[in-house]
Amino acid sequence: MAIQFSKIGLIGKHTNPEVRSTLASLVVFLQAKGIEITMEEHCAAFMPDLLVKRAKRDALGKLCDLIIVIGGDGSLLDAARAVVDDNIPVLGVNRGRRGFLTDISPQALTQSLEPILHGAFQEEDRFLLEMQLLRHHQVVDQGIALNEVVLYSGDIARMIEFEVIIDQQLVYRQRADGIITATPTGSTAYALSGGGPILHPSLPAIVLVPMHPTTLSNRPIVIDSSGRIEIHIMPDVLLNPRLSCDGQVHFNAEPNDRIVIQRKAKQLRLLHPTDYDYYHTLRTKLGWSA
Amino acid sequence: MAIQFSKIGLIGKHTNPEVRSTLASLVVFLQAKGIEITMEEHCAAFMPDLLVKRAKRDALGKLCDLIIVIGGDGSLLDAARAVVDDNIPVLGVNRGRRGFLTDISPQALTQSLEPILHGAFQEEDRFLLEMQLLRHHQVVDQGIALNEVVLYSGDIARMIEFEVIIDQQLVYRQRADGIITATPTGSTAYALSGGGPILHPSLPAIVLVPMHPTTLSNRPIVIDSSGRIEIHIMPDVLLNPRLSCDGQVHFNAEPNDRIVIQRKAKQLRLLHPTDYDYYHTLRTKLGWSA
Amino acid sequence: MAIQFSKIGLIGKHTNPEVRSTLASLVVFLQAKGIEITMEEHCAAFMPDLLVKRAKRDALGKLCDLIIVIGGDGSLLDAARAVVDDNIPVLGVNRGRRGFLTDISPQALTQSLEPILHGAFQEEDRFLLEMQLLRHHQVVDQGIALNEVVLYSGDIARMIEFEVIIDQQLVYRQRADGIITATPTGSTAYALSGGGPILHPSLPAIVLVPMHPTTLSNRPIVIDSSGRIEIHIMPDVLLNPRLSCDGQVHFNAEPNDRIVIQRKAKQLRLLHPTDYDYYHTLRTKLGWSA
Amino acid sequence: MAIQFSKIGLIGKHTNPEVRSTLASLVVFLQAKGIEITMEEHCAAFMPDLLVKRAKRDALGKLCDLIIVIGGDGSLLDAARAVVDDNIPVLGVNRGRRGFLTDISPQALTQSLEPILHGAFQEEDRFLLEMQLLRHHQVVDQGIALNEVVLYSGDIARMIEFEVIIDQQLVYRQRADGIITATPTGSTAYALSGGGPILHPSLPAIVLVPMHPTTLSNRPIVIDSSGRIEIHIMPDVLLNPRLSCDGQVHFNAEPNDRIVIQRKAKQLRLLHPTDYDYYHTLRTKLGWSA
Repeated sequence: MAIQFSKIGLIGKHTNPEVRSTLASLVVFLQAKGIEITMEEHCAAFMPDLLVKRAKRDALGKLCDLIIVIGGDGSLLDAARAVVDDNIPVLGVNRGRRGFLTDISPQALTQSLEPILHGAFQEEDRFLLEMQLLRHHQVVDQGIALNEVVLYSGDIARMIEFEVIIDQQLVYRQRADGIITATPTGSTAYALSGGGPILHPSLPAIVLVPMHPTTLSNRPIVIDSSGRIEIHIMPDVLLNPRLSCDGQVHFNAEPNDRIVIQRKAKQLRLLHPTDYDYYHTLRTKLGWSA
Repeated sequence: MAIQFSKIGLIGKHTNPEVRSTLASLVVFLQAKGIEITMEEHCAAFMPDLLVKRAKRDALGKLCDLIIVIGGDGSLLDAARAVVDDNIPVLGVNRGRRGFLTDISPQALTQSLEPILHGAFQEEDRFLLEMQLLRHHQVVDQGIALNEVVLYSGDIARMIEFEVIIDQQLVYRQRADGIITATPTGSTAYALSGGGPILHPSLPAIVLVPMHPTTLSNRPIVIDSSGRIEIHIMPDVLLNPRLSCDGQVHFNAEPNDRIVIQRKAKQLRLLHPTDYDYYHTLRTKLGWSA
Repeated sequence: MAIQFSKIGLIGKHTNPEVRSTLASLVVFLQAKGIEITMEEHCAAFMPDLLVKRAKRDALGKLCDLIIVIGGDGSLLDAARAVVDDNIPVLGVNRGRRGFLTDISPQALTQSLEPILHGAFQEEDRFLLEMQLLRHHQVVDQGIALNEVVLYSGDIARMIEFEVIIDQQLVYRQRADGIITATPTGSTAYALSGGGPILHPSLPAIVLVPMHPTTLSNRPIVIDSSGRIEIHIMPDVLLNPRLSCDGQVHFNAEPNDRIVIQRKAKQLRLLHPTDYDYYHTLRTKLGWSA
Repeated sequence: MAIQFSKIGLIGKHTNPEVRSTLASLVVFLQAKGIEITMEEHCAAFMPDLLVKRAKRDALGKLCDLIIVIGGDGSLLDAARAVVDDNIPVLGVNRGRRGFLTDISPQALTQSLEPILHGAFQEEDRFLLEMQLLRHHQVVDQGIALNEVVLYSGDIARMIEFEVIIDQQLVYRQRADGIITATPTGSTAYALSGGGPILHPSLPAIVLVPMHPTTLSNRPIVIDSSGRIEIHIMPDVLLNPRLSCDGQVHFNAEPNDRIVIQRKAKQLRLLHPTDYDYYHTLRTKLGWSA
C-alpha cells in the first residue's frame, strides 16, 4: 500500500531535550520517505539545523494532511484545539507522564509509524467542548476544550456558589471549590481525580464533577453530549472565579456571569496503531494490571 | 379531551395498609369514570370487598391499557419487569421510601390523575437489562432488570475474583465483593451507594460499579448501552457467588460461570405528570435542596 | 448558684444585621445582670448606641473571663485563634450556615445562656495546629489554625508536587491540587468535602487529605496529634503555591519551601450547653436525620 | 549478642506448596541454632518428615517464646487471635498477596531472621477488638478481631437497618449493606476498600465504615479506641444478618440483636526487622511508589 500522507506537521514540547531528540530522528525518517515536513515555529526555532518548513501552530492544519505530536497529553490537547477545525488527523507520541492520548512509544517509533503511514491505523473521533463566558447577555470570552472546562474559585480556600442549569432546567445550586465539565476524553484526567467516573471515548456524554462540594450527597452527573450546560455564578460571590480550558487557557469570570458549555460540532480525528486497545491503556495507566 | 384509558390494571404492595387504603379510593375514583379495573390477584385477595377483575401480575399487560402501581420503587420495579414486553404504559404512586420512579403523591392522587387520564402526561422510555447466566456455554438461568444486575459473593466478608469483558475486550480482572451493572434508572439506586455516578435517564449508557474493589484505583466505568458485557467468575473462586436482578430475583452462580448482560430491546413506558422534573426529584430525594 | 462570669467579651460578624440585632439584645440581657461587657472594636463601631467597653480582638482575652461569639463557624474560628493563648472559655451563638462550633441558637438565646452563666455547661478542649513556613531553614511566616492548614496550588487547574514527611519519615510524594491538614474540629469542615473521615473531637489525631491527587489509590491518613508533619514543596514546581489557616489567613509559598505543622500546646476552651450532643449536631448538620 | 528465643512455634498456610518449602528450610535453619521447634499440628501433618514437636494452634503460645507465621495476612490474623492472650511475640513471613503484616520476604529469610533472633528488631503493639453478640441481654456469641468486625446483610442485595451507639450516645440509624468496625491494623484491609481512611498503627483509634449506606452524606467516623461501640440491628429487619471477625470467624445474628465491640485489653506483640518502615509498606502495597 502506498504512503497515505505526503505533508506531515510536527509539534513537540520543545523545552524537553528528549522530545527534540525524538523530533530530529523523526524528521530524518519521514524525509527519507519523501514526505514534506512542516514544524511548529517555536519548536523549529529550537532546532535550527533541521531543513523543514515552519508554520504557526494554528496554520499547520491547513498545510498538512497529518499532525504528529511528540510530548505528553498536554501537548496533544494544545495541538488538538489548534487544528480541530481543519478536520486533519492527529497522532501522538508519548514523551510525558500519563499518555492516555499519546499512545505511541518513542522507543519503537519508526516501527509503529511505518504501518500508520501506509494507512493501517484505527481512527477515532473525540468530541470537544465549546465554552462561552456571558456577562449581561454578551459573550465576553470563549474557548474550546478536549478534556474539560473548569470553573474554580480563584482562591481555593474560599468557595464559590453557582447554579447548574441543563437544557433550561435547574440541576442544583452548590457551594464548592468549583466544577469540572469533562468529555469522555477528559474523564480519565482531572475529573477522575475529582471522583468522576470513566466514560468510554465512544460515549456521547458529558460528566459534571463538582469540586469539594459542601453538600456531601452531591455526586457526578453524566448527561447526553447534546445538552446545553449553563453555569451561573451567584451574584453575591465575593471573589472573581476563574475558568480554564484543558488547564491551559485561562479566563477571568465575575459574579453573576454565566458560562455556557456545549459540544463542538467538529471533532478531533485521533489516530492509533491498529493494535490500540483502550482498556489496555486504562489498566496500564491506572495501575490495574496487578 | 376524552379519557384515554378504558382498562386500568392496579398493582400495590398489599401488605401495607396505607397502600390498601389508596387502592380502595383509587378503585372508586376510576370506576366512577367508567374505567374497567383489573387488580393483581394477590392484591385483590387482600381486598375482597372490591368489585374488580383479577389477574396474575404477568397477565395484566395483556388485559389493560395502563398499569398503576402503588408502593415504593420496589413495587414499580416488580411491575415493570412483568409488563415490559406488553408495551403498556406504567404510572407510579409513591407509598414507599425514596420514590424516584413513583412520582405521584397519594395526597393529591385524584387531582394528579385527572389530567393524566385525559392524555396530559409526559411519557418516557426507560431501558432494561437482560442477563444470562452461562455454564459450559449453556444458558442455565436468565432474568431482566430495570435498575441493576448485581453479582456478589454469597458471603460478604469473602471476596470473589472476576474479569469484566466488554465487546470481547478485557476491561479488568478484579477481586471485590462483587459488581453492580446499572441502567440510568438504577444509577440513583444501589449503584449510587456504591460510589457510581448519576446517569440522566435519557442517556443510552450503562455503568459498571465494582463493590469494595481491592484495587483502590478502580473506578466506575460508563459505556454505551449497546455494549455486550460479560463477567467471568474466575475458576478458582472458592464459594458460590450470587446474582440478583433489581435486588428481587436471585440466582446461584458457580466458579467459572459467565454472566452476559445486554440492553433489552423492549423498553418500559413510564408516565409522569406534565410538571414532572427529573432534576427536581434528584434534589428532593438526595437532599440537595438546602 | 452565683453568676460565674463578671466580664464578658462580645465578638460578632457585624456586617450581618441579624448579628447586630442579636448583639444588641445580648448586651441588654447581660448588663441587667451586672456583667461588664467589652465589645470587639469593629463590631462596636457599627453599634455606636451601645454603652460598652471596646477592645481589639486580640486584647479581649486579657480583659474578660468569657468570650461570646455571634456568627457562623468562621467568626468562631477567627475569635478562637485570637484568644487561645489567654486560656479563656469561648461560647458560640449560631448566626451562620453550618454551625458545628456555634451551637447556641439565637432564638432561645437568653434561656440557653442563663444556666451557662451560672456555671451549668460542658467544657471541651479543642486543639489547634501551629504552622511554620520555612525557606532555607528560616521561618519566614507562621500561623495557627483551629480547623485546618491548606497548602494549595495558587492556580487550581495546575497541580503542585510535594512530599509529606511525618516524624522524619517519608509518607509519600504526590501531585495534587494541594493538601489539607485538619484537626478533629476541622474534620467536619473543608476536609470532609475533600473525602476525609470524621474524627471525634476528643481524639488526639490529625488527618491529612490530599486534594484531587493524581495517584488514585491515595487515601486520607490519620496520625497521632503529637506527630511532626512536614510538607516539602518540590523544587521544580512552576508556580507559587499558597497556604491558608482556617481559610482566613493566607501566605505565599515558593518552590522548595517546607511547611511544618504541629499541634499547638494551648487549647481552645469551648463551652456548650449541658444538653450538647456532638452526634446530634452531626446528624442535623449533615442531614442524617432522615 | 546471644540468641533471644529458644523455643519457636511455626504456623503456615500448609495448603500452599511454597509455604511448605519455606517452612522446611526454616526448620533446618533454626534447629541448626539449637532452637526447639513446635509446629502447628495441621501444618505438621502435611510435612511428616520434619522432626519437630506438634501442638494445636491455641497451645503454641504457651509452649514457645516466639511464633513465626508463614503465609499472607490471613494466616497472621488467624495466629494472632490464637496467641494474643499469651503475650508472645509474633513475626510474619510473607507468602501471600498483600502482606501488610507479614513483612519479611521469603527470599532473604535467613538473612532477615539472623538479627531478629539475636534481639535486633522493632516490637510494636497492635490492639484487637472484642465482639459480643447480645440477644435479650444475654451474650450468645463472642469473638476477637485484629483487623475488623463486620456486620453484614446475609444477602448483599437486601440492606439491613441498624443503629450505631457509642458510649451510650446514638450516632446514627442507617440502612446499608452493613458496617465495618476496624482497628488501625484493619484500616488498610477491608475498611480501605469501603472508603475508610488509613489509621497509623500507633493511633489508639477505631474507625466505623458503613457499607453502601443509603444516606449519601454518611461518612467514616474515627473514635477513640476506649469507646464502647454498640450496633443495634433494628427489630423489623427481615433477614438474618451475619457477623465476621477478620473475615475468618462467622456468626449468625438476628433482628433486634445488639453487637458490642470494645478494645481488647491484651495486645498483639508484632515483631519487625529493624529497618521496617510503615510508610514504605504503604507506598509499596498501595502502589504509591510511582
